[in-house]
Amino acid sequence: MLLLSRTVVPGLHLACRLKSTSRICVRVCSTNDSFQPERPSLAFTGDQSSTRRWKVMGTLLGLGAVWAYHDHQCRATQESPPRIYTREEVSSHCTPETRVWVTLGSEVFDVTEFVDLHPGGASKIMLAAGGPLEPFWATYAIHNQSHVREILAQYKIGELRLEDKAPTTLKTSDPYADDPKRHPVLKVNSQCPFNAEPPPGLLTDNYITPNPIFFTRNHLPVPNLDPDTYRLHVVGPPEGQSLSLSLEDLYRFPKHEITVTLQCAGNRRSEMTRFKEVKGLEWRTGAISTACWGGARLCDVLAQAGHQVCENEAHVCFEGLDSDPTGTYYGASIPLARAMDPEAEVLLAYEMNGEPLPRDHGFPVRVVVPGVVGARHVKWLGKVSVEPEESYSHWQRRDYKGFSPSVDWDTVDFDSAPSIQELPVQSAITEPQDGETIETGEVTIRGYAWSGGGRAVVRVDVSLDGGITWQTAELNGEEQRPRKAWAWRLWQLKVPVPTGKKELNIVCKAVDDSYNVQPDTVAPIWNLRGVLSNAWHRVHVHVAK
Amino acid sequence: MLLLSRTVVPGLHLACRLKSTSRICVRVCSTNDSFQPERPSLAFTGDQSSTRRWKVMGTLLGLGAVWAYHDHQCRATQESPPRIYTREEVSSHCTPETRVWVTLGSEVFDVTEFVDLHPGGASKIMLAAGGPLEPFWATYAIHNQSHVREILAQYKIGELRLEDKAPTTLKTSDPYADDPKRHPVLKVNSQCPFNAEPPPGLLTDNYITPNPIFFTRNHLPVPNLDPDTYRLHVVGPPEGQSLSLSLEDLYRFPKHEITVTLQCAGNRRSEMTRFKEVKGLEWRTGAISTACWGGARLCDVLAQAGHQVCENEAHVCFEGLDSDPTGTYYGASIPLARAMDPEAEVLLAYEMNGEPLPRDHGFPVRVVVPGVVGARHVKWLGKVSVEPEESYSHWQRRDYKGFSPSVDWDTVDFDSAPSIQELPVQSAITEPQDGETIETGEVTIRGYAWSGGGRAVVRVDVSLDGGITWQTAELNGEEQRPRKAWAWRLWQLKVPVPTGKKELNIVCKAVDDSYNVQPDTVAPIWNLRGVLSNAWHRVHVHVAK
Repeated sequence: MLLLSRTVVPGLHLACRLKSTSRICVRVCSTNDSFQPERPSLAFTGDQSSTRRWKVMGTLLGLGAVWAYHDHQCRATQESPPRIYTREEVSSHCTPETRVWVTLGSEVFDVTEFVDLHPGGASKIMLAAGGPLEPFWATYAIHNQSHVREILAQYKIGELRLEDKAPTTLKTSDPYADDPKRHPVLKVNSQCPFNAEPPPGLLTDNYITPNPIFFTRNHLPVPNLDPDTYRLHVVGPPEGQSLSLSLEDLYRFPKHEITVTLQCAGNRRSEMTRFKEVKGLEWRTGAISTACWGGARLCDVLAQAGHQVCENEAHVCFEGLDSDPTGTYYGASIPLARAMDPEAEVLLAYEMNGEPLPRDHGFPVRVVVPGVVGARHVKWLGKVSVEPEESYSHWQRRDYKGFSPSVDWDTVDFDSAPSIQELPVQSAITEPQDGETIETGEVTIRGYAWSGGGRAVVRVDVSLDGGITWQTAELNGEEQRPRKAWAWRLWQLKVPVPTGKKELNIVCKAVDDSYNVQPDTVAPIWNLRGVLSNAWHRVHVHVAK
Repeated sequence: MLLLSRTVVPGLHLACRLKSTSRICVRVCSTNDSFQPERPSLAFTGDQSSTRRWKVMGTLLGLGAVWAYHDHQCRATQESPPRIYTREEVSSHCTPETRVWVTLGSEVFDVTEFVDLHPGGASKIMLAAGGPLEPFWATYAIHNQSHVREILAQYKIGELRLEDKAPTTLKTSDPYADDPKRHPVLKVNSQCPFNAEPPPGLLTDNYITPNPIFFTRNHLPVPNLDPDTYRLHVVGPPEGQSLSLSLEDLYRFPKHEITVTLQCAGNRRSEMTRFKEVKGLEWRTGAISTACWGGARLCDVLAQAGHQVCENEAHVCFEGLDSDPTGTYYGASIPLARAMDPEAEVLLAYEMNGEPLPRDHGFPVRVVVPGVVGARHVKWLGKVSVEPEESYSHWQRRDYKGFSPSVDWDTVDFDSAPSIQELPVQSAITEPQDGETIETGEVTIRGYAWSGGGRAVVRVDVSLDGGITWQTAELNGEEQRPRKAWAWRLWQLKVPVPTGKKELNIVCKAVDDSYNVQPDTVAPIWNLRGVLSNAWHRVHVHVAK
């Protein structure tokens, strides 16, 4: 049994039962001082296939939307009237340089001096820097003890302004007003539409990404669909018959469960931006996550509608139920040959890690196209049709394509490049992080590696000297099936910190089973949309004296 | 009609007739200053299929190739009179326990410490333990290089007794004496076994490489097989029946013709050598060529023998009829899933560009595995079997694998890396050539680009300033089928020579339809066998004043 979970927060109480079979139940008690109390019981089922040797210990972080209010009295004595701060002021104090502030209820604390003393590690407490502690304490419920409160009380510096104590209210006309609540640990790149990624330190804590921190890439407001009235429209061939499938109908197809890594084409775009401006969200290394998806195979559904493989380069077009104010739905397509190939394992997924799909991830049904760019995994799926050409959607024909670095917005010809389907080989370092100071002695470097098209990662090389010398990392995570390496490998390398070095330039690069490698540098793969950013990943760290 | 032929070697006599139908006759007058003059008349027939739009103009150039044999004298100086040994004494030293002695000419060497360092594997050098090296070096003629002699000289321990100096058991016959005649234009990297490549200027003159200049990669002497008595042995499954197929039997299977580019894993190895020494033949950019292959599909033949796709990662093992003095045949294997997939189009080929296979290319039958490294396209095919694991051949398990740059011959673990199957994206400049002086005005840059696994080349970027700015080249050659881009694209870019420049650093890099790219530099992909050399290709040219 391969345990991928690391205990990074000693002493934290996780009501987590790991059974040697496969069912994993995680109970999360969370508190939130502004919403109705609720105590959800979240359970997800790992893939049970006998070919899988791993078990996931999911350390699900508490959903931010949940808070069981504990009536707390701060015991810190205040000699003078408390200073009053706004939420905005608090949020500006989120680094050791600006000092690290957090809130609990209406109280404001400067915990800068405590960061390095935090038993769970500095990186974990920094996740809450500039914001409320509640969502984190909701998960790590051990914090709800009086002595923890007493420690915190020593760092109190004031109170929140009255109007900041209540959550800000959303405009009722806001198309995003009905978007679901998200986990506050997510690093938000865009609120509307919601686009966010888990922080690197959490991303590779688990082989299977817990649903609440799975990266979210929305193009439009999240539809709120009624599972009872939901219908998937599958257009039949001219001589066949169209289908209108309820969820119950979909459940009747043989259920397939596969572990698939999804990656946004824009993952690591921020590194391209550093070289030259691009248009797109500033994704760091977290626009990638892994889940076990359950659903019907697309090929089975298409076959029932009477579709067959054909010689033409036909495409299967998907239309989401998310739309813009003009009524344009999100759309994308994949080649019919891939859709009809049972070995390609394209799913109409209704489960994510044993749960119904979360709303942010396409409830009730989304497409999952293993080995292919995230943009084709259409969420809130409304319609499937087979067309002689690829989708005419903006996101198929006028976005998600790669160009030469010499092409700019004046010269770009979107018809000249193929739409991205399979992605190239990728890897990134998630620990340590750029700018971090590491201790002398030994350093553990961790990260992920993945390749498109079912190609397995066969090696990850790591350099401490900017790419002059290399060491081979240990590959962890689930061994992938030949030609169906749909999921990432996590990797780590424990190495002595070279003596006398004040800083290290840590680099990683992966090799897949076609022996494709990542390019050395960003500039020669730069493109105006900032997609396909897969150059060597580099982090610069200081070594403590 | 697409004419790809160019005259690059003025003054050569080409009696070349091109008919607008399809038959192409090329007369080659070649000179050779060390062998008997010969005037071969070579004719080959281009593929006539109506779906093909190209015609080949074979520009076979008669360049005089020179092979001068240099008798080598070992230069190791011995301070004291050499110790004298008998052949009997030498023969008793044939295990690591008794120490491993060998002889070369009259010299005696204790190579015990070298056995594990032997690039060809310990088992291979042990074949000569206690006896003369000559019979092995005669076959593995790569040893006939001065640096090999120098390494050996370090292990010298004495001389053979006078009466033992005459070899007693050496066969006088040269195992390579029966090798076929070759076209003198080929650049020879090794005469015995024969390994040679076309010069870059000719390589991309034709989309289909004419047979006589198709690169040749032999591991052993070329068998001379009688087509009338030839039999291909196909081992059946336990419950099935083995087949013994004559050529006539093979012709009865449906004939398939596909255009496939073959590339040696060592193509462009010479660029790796420039960075750091590697073991292997000094291929430049020419260990790649393209032909239209005709034959039976492997899946049809396997099916007739009763084989089926199975869930296990079984391999189809191929054995050539080329063998070394110990009776070891060349061997390699591919996954059964690829072999049985009609879409993968693996052939048992008996035709090359409409002709029976030339002897150097596997007459009468070879394997062609589209999208896969040349080493698996076993020539002079004698036996096909389905095994639970990949081939135990040296060339499958102890060669043709990629490693990190940090791995050397002391630390290499061949079991730690997968055998190369699909190759990564590749491109090279064939015109102008490195060191050339070009005229001011306009320069035409030409080359090839290809990727493994049926992935199409979608773009080639060319830089004149060493990789700072890029322009996109025009792709020529046959448009490839989706997922079956088995053949290369030729490309060209006509650009003004920047005024005032005295030299240009021309670079090319290709992108395939998984958006994999070539790495920027050689050093980070360097490996001890010098395989998978696919960094940006760079040529430095001078501009005429």
